[in-house]
Amino acid sequence: MKTIFIAGAGRSSTALISHLLENSDRHGLRVIVGDASLELAVNKCNNHPNSIPTLFDVNDAVLRNKLVSQADLVISLLPPDMHHLLVVECLVHGKHFLSASYVSAKVAALEPQAREKGVVVISECGLDPGIDHMSAMEIINRLKSQGANLISFKSYTGGLVAPESNDNPWGYKISWNPRNVILAGQGTASYLWGGKFKHIPYSRIFTDIETLEVDQIGRFDGYANRDSVSYLKIYGLEGISGLLRGTLRQRGYCRAWNVFVTLGLTDDVVRIPSSGSMTYAELVESFIPVHIKGETIAHRVASLCSLPVDGEAMTLVTWTGIFEDTLIGIENATPAQILQKLLESKWILNPEDRDMVVMIHEFIYDLNGESRRLTSSLVVKGEDSVHTAMAKTVGLPLAITALKLMDGSISLPGGLYLPVTKEIYEPVLRDLEKHGVVFQEKVS
Amino acid sequence: MKTIFIAGAGRSSTALISHLLENSDRHGLRVIVGDASLELAVNKCNNHPNSIPTLFDVNDAVLRNKLVSQADLVISLLPPDMHHLLVVECLVHGKHFLSASYVSAKVAALEPQAREKGVVVISECGLDPGIDHMSAMEIINRLKSQGANLISFKSYTGGLVAPESNDNPWGYKISWNPRNVILAGQGTASYLWGGKFKHIPYSRIFTDIETLEVDQIGRFDGYANRDSVSYLKIYGLEGISGLLRGTLRQRGYCRAWNVFVTLGLTDDVVRIPSSGSMTYAELVESFIPVHIKGETIAHRVASLCSLPVDGEAMTLVTWTGIFEDTLIGIENATPAQILQKLLESKWILNPEDRDMVVMIHEFIYDLNGESRRLTSSLVVKGEDSVHTAMAKTVGLPLAITALKLMDGSISLPGGLYLPVTKEIYEPVLRDLEKHGVVFQEKVS
Repeated sequence: MKTIFIAGAGRSSTALISHLLENSDRHGLRVIVGDASLELAVNKCNNHPNSIPTLFDVNDAVLRNKLVSQADLVISLLPPDMHHLLVVECLVHGKHFLSASYVSAKVAALEPQAREKGVVVISECGLDPGIDHMSAMEIINRLKSQGANLISFKSYTGGLVAPESNDNPWGYKISWNPRNVILAGQGTASYLWGGKFKHIPYSRIFTDIETLEVDQIGRFDGYANRDSVSYLKIYGLEGISGLLRGTLRQRGYCRAWNVFVTLGLTDDVVRIPSSGSMTYAELVESFIPVHIKGETIAHRVASLCSLPVDGEAMTLVTWTGIFEDTLIGIENATPAQILQKLLESKWILNPEDRDMVVMIHEFIYDLNGESRRLTSSLVVKGEDSVHTAMAKTVGLPLAITALKLMDGSISLPGGLYLPVTKEIYEPVLRDLEKHGVVFQEKVS
Repeated sequence: MKTIFIAGAGRSSTALISHLLENSDRHGLRVIVGDASLELAVNKCNNHPNSIPTLFDVNDAVLRNKLVSQADLVISLLPPDMHHLLVVECLVHGKHFLSASYVSAKVAALEPQAREKGVVVISECGLDPGIDHMSAMEIINRLKSQGANLISFKSYTGGLVAPESNDNPWGYKISWNPRNVILAGQGTASYLWGGKFKHIPYSRIFTDIETLEVDQIGRFDGYANRDSVSYLKIYGLEGISGLLRGTLRQRGYCRAWNVFVTLGLTDDVVRIPSSGSMTYAELVESFIPVHIKGETIAHRVASLCSLPVDGEAMTLVTWTGIFEDTLIGIENATPAQILQKLLESKWILNPEDRDMVVMIHEFIYDLNGESRRLTSSLVVKGEDSVHTAMAKTVGLPLAITALKLMDGSISLPGGLYLPVTKEIYEPVLRDLEKHGVVFQEKVS
């Protein structure tokens, strides 16, 4: 009997845990689920005989040691800056490690030890990053083997709400970590276009956008992710003239979100004194320059942002209730924390709501002297607010990779991997298809 | 004989070191000057018999221990995030500590220990913060004792170039840490106005400005410093309806600087791949969105910033040479590092150049039923590029405070102090006047 230890039983763990448990008898597996909330761990285990829910605090070194030493594989769904604590423990005990997060500098630094100790560490193995890497590499390698000359590659992913459950003008409900929704895009984004590196500062990331179309689903806003440039090497695309990875939102979302950015409401550093006894309207007012005049607060914000007060962007912003005299009710908070509290109360995924994951790849390439465009798109809808498309597309690649590592059908020398390696993405994509994660390709 | 250890012999140490050495015989003092560059330490000591130049690395715990244990007082001119290392050492050995920097969280955390061990730690004791605190508190306490009811207080300081040495359109040359010039204003600024807290995000800090006038000197741009709100309590001004601390620049500087901010060139996080073999024009181009068209790079930047290409702001930006095909020549640099390199080569304080420190306080208050306005302004010009007004106004308050701590004329129980305490600012302001640091007051 083999043991998998899952650290973190939050929103995105549902599909991972249930898929592992469903397959636990057949694979001779036992699954330990650890979370800072024992209740959450118990809930997610759902009394399955092969499950062991447990209280887990990643900062408790004794607990970390004990749980990792009992496992054959550790899967971390903890916040990204905590993975390295578990990776270090895995190196001590010679256990494999899996996560859906971007490789942090601290995890990257452990690569030589992983190689030396024969420990397999796989990162970026969820949705985005994850399924996007796998499906992109499958196409890149196929096109290369056909003799194509790749010109550019764009890849966008969004965790959205399905049209049938969309009852708010943003077309957005929270299906994953809401904090990441608020802080999205901060920093400077870098990508490659026309053979040149391009950069976008945070103040322009939600206006320097493009429109993407997915058959039968519609058109979306796409904004650039922070770092596309490092994927040139990871994807083996050195010499290509365009590479961009980005995020999808419903059309209109980005320009409306930019109102929050322009106001300064996405800052997560400054503390608002007496925010507990302030209203949302007072908070917004505190970010409007003294010299800006206007009949209502919405008029003043519209004037600040050079937007029509009755236009789409301002309509979306007004809908959130941020101009209303409602008490904020959290003390000494950052604007980002306050905005998160407000939007969590507005962008609720109701029990019956279906979320929707959309991914689109666009390759431009020359083949046999002809210029071609290949698009590959994925649309996955959730069942309800617990069995979300987000949890499924993050959890399934992790679960499938975990099962294949345990039964030896994925076998790698020790080291740090992304699922751009054929040995990982081929078998995982094949199994994902069986679960309805199917891309639609179109060549023109 | 008493010993003062000065850590850091950079640009702002000149006046501090020479003032202490000039007074060293009379006060029975010996001055150890430590710097990572022994040459710099030797230069600043200028063979004075009471001086000891030494190599010093604040990260060397053995050296730190040895030098602090030999001193009666430590003065740190190191970067702000290093002071706490020296304060900890001062607490171990029971030595006093002085700096011109803002109190960091790490230094603030040491206050209880300072109180317990009878160690006097004085921070914010240079120009701004420093002289501004002292002169403000002198006026605040005077007005209060007259029975005035304070309505608002604004205080602006700028390290500029004297009109007679001004030969560039920015009216700016580098008289202190150039890195701080590039990163100035980052974060969200907070101040109080009309009885309400106001906030300005970085993207608006250089456009949400006001004009300040100083008699016989001229008019300046003023932009808000990051945190004015915490000075409500420090200045004893709770209940006032306006409090703003800010920075002065020559008129036109701020709107021109905002072009760099809008482009994204002040970011100090993202690394520009192959910056070593790029030109400045190529760097700028990489920050211009693909969809922006224009005849020249200056036209495209003007269009991005909604500015006339032949207006003042664009003229200033063009003057820097940032649109030229000059090689950058530093590899894997951040935009902020690149901008710093360029401006250091343009904003040179030539040997004969005189810099100029300008400070202006404005108090609005009611006295005997009448509304009044008191302005107090300070203008200090440097002698040349070594004996700068900046070095003088940062160094003299430190030197004077140090001498008074050593001869016992400032005597305080252990603890963390700013020079808002009467026991510090009264004697120090009196001595500063003897050295030409004199405020001009006007009441209307």
